[in-house]
Amino acid sequence: MKIEFVLPSEIEKRSFEIISQELEQRGVTLPPDEAPITMRTIHTSADFDYADTMRYSKGGIEKAKELIRNGADIVTDTNMALSGINKKRLACFGGQVHCFMADEEVAAEAKERQVTRATVSMERAAKLGKPVIFAIGNAPTALISLYEMMEAGIFTPEFVIGVPVGFVNVVAAKELFLNSDVPYIINEGRKGGSNIAAAICNALIYSL
Amino acid sequence: MKIEFVLPSEIEKRSFEIISQELEQRGVTLPPDEAPITMRTIHTSADFDYADTMRYSKGGIEKAKELIRNGADIVTDTNMALSGINKKRLACFGGQVHCFMADEEVAAEAKERQVTRATVSMERAAKLGKPVIFAIGNAPTALISLYEMMEAGIFTPEFVIGVPVGFVNVVAAKELFLNSDVPYIINEGRKGGSNIAAAICNALIYSL
Repeated sequence: MKIEFVLPSEIEKRSFEIISQELEQRGVTLPPDEAPITMRTIHTSADFDYADTMRYSKGGIEKAKELIRNGADIVTDTNMALSGINKKRLACFGGQVHCFMADEEVAAEAKERQVTRATVSMERAAKLGKPVIFAIGNAPTALISLYEMMEAGIFTPEFVIGVPVGFVNVVAAKELFLNSDVPYIINEGRKGGSNIAAAICNALIYSL
Repeated sequence: MKIEFVLPSEIEKRSFEIISQELEQRGVTLPPDEAPITMRTIHTSADFDYADTMRYSKGGIEKAKELIRNGADIVTDTNMALSGINKKRLACFGGQVHCFMADEEVAAEAKERQVTRATVSMERAAKLGKPVIFAIGNAPTALISLYEMMEAGIFTPEFVIGVPVGFVNVVAAKELFLNSDVPYIINEGRKGGSNIAAAICNALIYSL
């Protein structure tokens, strides 16, 4: 296979054209509001499975955009997603990205209570006192903790991007929110990751 | 599906057991030295395709471990991978992780020369003056630049982890190194990413 000359500024555009063509060849038609988001998850993973498994709550995308437009923060459960989300563009709307996972206090409390750092991080995020989009790319326990706070009437997240990845409790944790009233973008099944969480956040931010 | 109670400290172990079982069910037997690395790419993506597409040069894993043991640095092409690699554990051996992609000078030079920032970053990495493992998780142009420096007799990388992801020149850039004499770990095809690059680096570091 030969190297094709593509100007740096054209690489992303060309990639999205290829993804578009291949979705068409596979007979997949994505709804216009979902397409830029699902396509960005494929762009970041080269995995067309996302075309089949991405789930959007009714009106969810509009809700997420409205939140960002009005300055909502994003809380994520991994420093990799924190690093991948376009913080400058989000800041234009007044939002910040947080990840509490590496805080020493969070680690100490988690160890003492024998819960994951993700659980403690979510409890901390619930106290930010402003609208938050949760972008969960790693820990199913983050989703489970959010759900438990909701069930206990302590806190209801405004929006959940639920794309933890893995083999233990990941599918079940996503199901909790697929069956809830919280607006969401979720990738059903085991797949997801920090890169997917960042891609979804960026697709939303770039659409504004 | 029900939430299973698993102690935080046990989640990773349980995940690797599940991956092991499912590889067996698929009739896949991974060579013992490759298994922890390939399994960690599956752990981070929930994508069993990696079991079929990960390529290791002969003696490559031993070479990579030796480099890390002797204090080699890691240079990566994304801040997400930089964020995901276990820098504390690498520092125990004397190595550091670098990513030059966000440097303003790199961006300015790339713009002027109409090349990608990855190209300029690789040129900068070549001047570090110590053994380097290149962990490329995003930009095929990073691999292409390394190859061009090699062909021009300017610089030969000690080791290449080649897992850029995507649709433009990714497959071809990986082929350059699959057919070279440079020791490598490469995921053949379109798949890869920052998360995969970090997972491979961490699998190597954790094995020491």
